[in-house]
Amino acid sequence: MACGPDHEDGATDVRAGSRGPPRPPEAVTAVTAPAAEAVAALVAAIDPVDARLVELARAHHDHLTKPRGSLGAIEDLGARLCAIAGHVPPPVPEPAAVAVFAADHGVVAEGVTPWPQEVTAQMVANFCAGGAAINVIARRHRLEVVVVDVGVAGPLDLPVDVPLLRRRVRAGTANLRREPAMSPDEAARAVLVGADVAAALVASGARALVTGEMGIGNTTASAAVIAALTGAAPAAVTGRGTGVDDATLARKVAVVADALARCGPPAEPLAVLAEVGGLEIAALAGFCLAGARARVPVIVDGVIALAGALVAVALAPPAVDYLVAGHRSSEPGASVALARLGLDPVVDLGLRLGEGSGAALALPVVQAAAAVMGEMATFDGAGVTYKDR
Amino acid sequence: MACGPDHEDGATDVRAGSRGPPRPPEAVTAVTAPAAEAVAALVAAIDPVDARLVELARAHHDHLTKPRGSLGAIEDLGARLCAIAGHVPPPVPEPAAVAVFAADHGVVAEGVTPWPQEVTAQMVANFCAGGAAINVIARRHRLEVVVVDVGVAGPLDLPVDVPLLRRRVRAGTANLRREPAMSPDEAARAVLVGADVAAALVASGARALVTGEMGIGNTTASAAVIAALTGAAPAAVTGRGTGVDDATLARKVAVVADALARCGPPAEPLAVLAEVGGLEIAALAGFCLAGARARVPVIVDGVIALAGALVAVALAPPAVDYLVAGHRSSEPGASVALARLGLDPVVDLGLRLGEGSGAALALPVVQAAAAVMGEMATFDGAGVTYKDR
Repeated sequence: MACGPDHEDGATDVRAGSRGPPRPPEAVTAVTAPAAEAVAALVAAIDPVDARLVELARAHHDHLTKPRGSLGAIEDLGARLCAIAGHVPPPVPEPAAVAVFAADHGVVAEGVTPWPQEVTAQMVANFCAGGAAINVIARRHRLEVVVVDVGVAGPLDLPVDVPLLRRRVRAGTANLRREPAMSPDEAARAVLVGADVAAALVASGARALVTGEMGIGNTTASAAVIAALTGAAPAAVTGRGTGVDDATLARKVAVVADALARCGPPAEPLAVLAEVGGLEIAALAGFCLAGARARVPVIVDGVIALAGALVAVALAPPAVDYLVAGHRSSEPGASVALARLGLDPVVDLGLRLGEGSGAALALPVVQAAAAVMGEMATFDGAGVTYKDR
Repeated sequence: MACGPDHEDGATDVRAGSRGPPRPPEAVTAVTAPAAEAVAALVAAIDPVDARLVELARAHHDHLTKPRGSLGAIEDLGARLCAIAGHVPPPVPEPAAVAVFAADHGVVAEGVTPWPQEVTAQMVANFCAGGAAINVIARRHRLEVVVVDVGVAGPLDLPVDVPLLRRRVRAGTANLRREPAMSPDEAARAVLVGADVAAALVASGARALVTGEMGIGNTTASAAVIAALTGAAPAAVTGRGTGVDDATLARKVAVVADALARCGPPAEPLAVLAEVGGLEIAALAGFCLAGARARVPVIVDGVIALAGALVAVALAPPAVDYLVAGHRSSEPGASVALARLGLDPVVDLGLRLGEGSGAALALPVVQAAAAVMGEMATFDGAGVTYKDR
């Protein structure tokens, strides 16, 4: 996938609702219908997996040279990959690509994080230069990194040749405590940005998609989205994010509660995104949906990605079968979302960084789960005696 | 490391105490002293890690472009690797090699497993042919596989050119419920086999060692070793192994209890190995010790490897700092051993296969933990603002 720059920042134009300059060649989905209709078409194009494949996968595993069930969660993962691919054994999901969606959050005005907002843009530069944790893990795990500006607030002072996709829908959200974070149309357009990126990555050969994100303040928006879609109490889903103190945590919980009170009872998923979401959360929802449409496994990272995944599954329930939970973030909202989605994470390393780091760390395990199904010997083939009862 | 065959099976000679044919060129440690003295020399050659490196590693991590502590267990792993290597940042522990030590157990006569004993030899052939789970995972994770016959009971009907190290100390243990599993000299010699293999792998370039094993009946011997060295009750450390039913589990617990009652109160570690251990457990202890001597991280697999690691650390307490727990096996004895060793496993996937499969699955995470320390940008270097308090 070509990742070159397409146009200069157009923050003011975009905020005013303009579609901006002509769509660059790397965007493969042309959005001609209103954005919400395009999202509806994406949702309608997602087929459920064939659950019979799960049983066939289990039967296949029982012929391999190991005691039945002895590979534990690796067998469950393998069965999931079979159902996604529609084939036993499943293809190894590679090559893989991670999309890091970056956006800013007006809610930082409420003092929910000690990090200044400009860190979002600085980290975009760091991703493009290859110096962030996700870059290092991706290099080791043969994972392509694509950085997407879907809603950074300020100018991005970057060289012309950096690998950044400029798809800014608006320059950061409004303060979700006081007003809707964005309009429903902006939410739908951000969903389509994520879907476009996923589709382009699959078109260029990716067979596993990994979610990534960056956005100062985005654990607050994620907590609000998770609370709105699961009914969980704000205190049960709001955490310390990148490491806030007790006073800031209490403020975050109050902000989430106020936002939910402002926008009223749970609404349809795009409305939740618009009221209390974030542009990268919306893009992650679209990324999950388009991965499901393409029948490619989507390895989901931590609490921000899970907020996006919850939106995706609320829009299209069959999409859940295409998701693989990469890790269990230490954020409480992550566990609430995992439980709602019915997903067991691959690793649990106490991570709370984001960027896709946890999902990228899990990727080799997911790929190995497919490989053992395709490459292990069978009892008959290897001349190994099956147990005598 | 050359893995060609060195000589034909010499089970009878070896059982009679002969040293067998001349040592092949790939054995780099010449054992001229009595075996127990050689083990003592190995133990004496292990230096503790420098604990100051752990603090330096934490300080290094705090300069990297991420919130402090946000990589959770990955930061702890990185600090451990720094202490082992004596350097911040640590070298990435690669290339890596897994040694699969195979041996048989006389205790199978007690009906502790439904699998016939010949499966040990059949699986050795499967490892050599590349068809087992560990082979598949090792291929994906760039891990050399070395298969070692340290005590298989029967003949190995293998082609001449298979990659098997023939280091059989005796043709399987005696029935540990009724009599000592082996002599103290045999136990020491099996420890030295493991140490030889580790030393040879390091000499040929390995910078991470991964433990592997195969032996029908070896969860029973491992439970006995763990109970003897930790004081845990037999029922607390004895599990279903590769999947036994309730009646067999009850029999296993009784066998472990009888074995411990037979040999009396806890003795010194080599005596524990001799009374209730196994030849592969002894070899794994030596493998851990020689890894520590070489200052190379040893990624430890499940309950059998942990029994060996407990013996190693009982002999040489500083060895524990060179161990990395790869995964949490579903066997209860694994959790008892991990707690005693003070190790947190990298992954927890409900595995109960052995072979080194869990440790091999964890390897990329361990290597990534080193890579992030060496390759991530710093706040100053990347121009990222540190949080404002």
